[in-house]
Amino acid sequence: MKKLAILGGKPIFKNYLPIAFPSLPPFKEVEDKFKEVFLSGMITNAKYVRSLEEKIANYLNVKYVVCVANCTSGLILSLKALKLKGKVIVPSFTFFATAHTLSWNNLTPTFVDCHRETFNINVSFLEEKIDQETSAIMPVHIFGNPVLVEEINKIAQKYSLKVIYDAAHAFGSRYNNSPLAGYGEVEVFSLSPTKPLVAGEGGVVVTNNKEIAEAITMGRDYGNPGDYHCKMVGLNARMTEVNAITALKNLELFPERLAKRKEIANFYISNLKDIPGISFQKIEVNASSCYKDFAIIIDEERFGLNRDELALVLERENISSRKYFFPPVHKQEIYKSKDIPLEGLENTNFISDHILCLPLFAQMKEEEMLSIGEVIKEAHQNTSLIKEVFKER
Amino acid sequence: MKKLAILGGKPIFKNYLPIAFPSLPPFKEVEDKFKEVFLSGMITNAKYVRSLEEKIANYLNVKYVVCVANCTSGLILSLKALKLKGKVIVPSFTFFATAHTLSWNNLTPTFVDCHRETFNINVSFLEEKIDQETSAIMPVHIFGNPVLVEEINKIAQKYSLKVIYDAAHAFGSRYNNSPLAGYGEVEVFSLSPTKPLVAGEGGVVVTNNKEIAEAITMGRDYGNPGDYHCKMVGLNARMTEVNAITALKNLELFPERLAKRKEIANFYISNLKDIPGISFQKIEVNASSCYKDFAIIIDEERFGLNRDELALVLERENISSRKYFFPPVHKQEIYKSKDIPLEGLENTNFISDHILCLPLFAQMKEEEMLSIGEVIKEAHQNTSLIKEVFKER
Repeated sequence: MKKLAILGGKPIFKNYLPIAFPSLPPFKEVEDKFKEVFLSGMITNAKYVRSLEEKIANYLNVKYVVCVANCTSGLILSLKALKLKGKVIVPSFTFFATAHTLSWNNLTPTFVDCHRETFNINVSFLEEKIDQETSAIMPVHIFGNPVLVEEINKIAQKYSLKVIYDAAHAFGSRYNNSPLAGYGEVEVFSLSPTKPLVAGEGGVVVTNNKEIAEAITMGRDYGNPGDYHCKMVGLNARMTEVNAITALKNLELFPERLAKRKEIANFYISNLKDIPGISFQKIEVNASSCYKDFAIIIDEERFGLNRDELALVLERENISSRKYFFPPVHKQEIYKSKDIPLEGLENTNFISDHILCLPLFAQMKEEEMLSIGEVIKEAHQNTSLIKEVFKER
Repeated sequence: MKKLAILGGKPIFKNYLPIAFPSLPPFKEVEDKFKEVFLSGMITNAKYVRSLEEKIANYLNVKYVVCVANCTSGLILSLKALKLKGKVIVPSFTFFATAHTLSWNNLTPTFVDCHRETFNINVSFLEEKIDQETSAIMPVHIFGNPVLVEEINKIAQKYSLKVIYDAAHAFGSRYNNSPLAGYGEVEVFSLSPTKPLVAGEGGVVVTNNKEIAEAITMGRDYGNPGDYHCKMVGLNARMTEVNAITALKNLELFPERLAKRKEIANFYISNLKDIPGISFQKIEVNASSCYKDFAIIIDEERFGLNRDELALVLERENISSRKYFFPPVHKQEIYKSKDIPLEGLENTNFISDHILCLPLFAQMKEEEMLSIGEVIKEAHQNTSLIKEVFKER
């Protein structure tokens, strides 16, 4: 191993290695359809959107799929369609968009701590957070790791709560060898550039409930059922045909890319597992993750550097990494309020302070993964020297 | 003239003539950039969005332009960024999305009647609707017809109200020979497929206020200022690069297309003006409309058929038309509420019941316009026969 850049060596990567890179089809595979759409003038929410809905319904084995402009819009419309009131149980260890979708619907988040090992909402802390005002649970499959859907649904049933799964990260994940669809009132998946299946911008709301599917179909078009007499307050959340064409082609290429994501995650695990103080997200029992992100937890005492220091070491080598999710939602200024109880989020605080996501995208090369591993190992070997550098700054 | 289809003749158009058709660049003019974006992986909110923002700022002669996913998202974020509370004055004669953007921000619409001739919010009725709870005015340039910006701004100043211009229809319209930008806190334009300038899906928020521009820039990315510590509850309202590239090329072609739209509107006016009972939208003084839509008002007594009947006559000839805006917002079920006063909307009710928008798009051919004119004239000549047909149904 060469000298670490933070210690005066040359960066291991000449060009910046991104944390994510969109999986797109070769342009020649989509250009004819792009051209067709331009000629026909049917550029948004038309036949290719319909076709994507059919193909995804088939892939996820679910009755109804409604394409939307993005996952956030899909969640906002789902909550609206369900006419929820009061409080909704969500994890705080999630991307803040989860909570925003509640806020746009005047719903108050009840934050539940995450599990220390799976990073997902901790099902054993869930019941105690339910009160008279609670109307729903919105679990999130963090980084693609399926939550314990059956246990959550059991609790929801017991208290007559709706379940909306924020499946932004989870296209391609499986539970009991099935896709993560049809467990809640809806699941909403993201097809944005950093996700396993990419449309460009886009999302899908999936459900087995016809009424909800119809409401989302209206809702993405302002709530207009077709006669310009709105039945709900909707959004413009239409998906463009170019994005649908992109996702359709990507869906064909998806099995290969999903396999590649898992391969990279496994490579990381086997390559880093023997480094003291580095641990990984535990995938739930009977589950398989699409690895939207690959995260490590850094224990400073055993590794010798803290999360922020390791991030800087990587940065100097031109390796991007992300403190994700930091800060957690309950520490975001806009969610601090006397109405939102914040106690009992110890795991969330811990994970948020110790987590680092590493580059993962289907096009990654083995030597890139190896180099990242080398840098982390080398950092562990040189913690005193590195700490000296940080002290001098 | 051949026999009208409603009277048993053949439709004048073999293929359905749409009400609108998107103005797109030739595919060959954009495909290289589409390909470049696919190769670079920078497919959303990147350099072409930045470039479009600069070009539009220049075109509209305004300091800041922020591209968003669509006009509705732009308005929702603008209202959020301005932290408005209470009531906002809006026309009821508008597309319902205007009111929806208030609803998503927990703002109550105060509907003000429109002007009988211009269809725009009636400035003389405006002051009496202002009360202690009123925080803003959101006028709409209906069909591209500029509202009386100076008079509205004067009233706003007098009562310390913010003004947000819903300029969804108005890209290309001018007032006092200048673009409709910089009059309010913001103007929000739509670049959706039916608009004079098309991105595919898209909108732009324009302002001379740096703080608001920064808030919208955050807001379109969930409220994230870049450090993942949200400063506001935002949306995903990013514009894709494909849409920005499309709009950039369309902007080059825009002067010609705008001229064509005006030419078509003028053609309609000179061709239909002598038909009894047909009148047109009066364009405001010192103003020029981009004619996002071309509307006629049908006076049944003088024309011989009512609006719905004429729409059916056109339909049978394969000519699309649109009852736009019908029903007006205050008659939509979701906006009927004891908190929203609905009196004094006589002009809105009248226009909404008598208006019909006719096909208008830059690619329209003279013979198509002539045929539409012929059908309307012929309908006027045969009102008794046509009424008989309707009676028999």
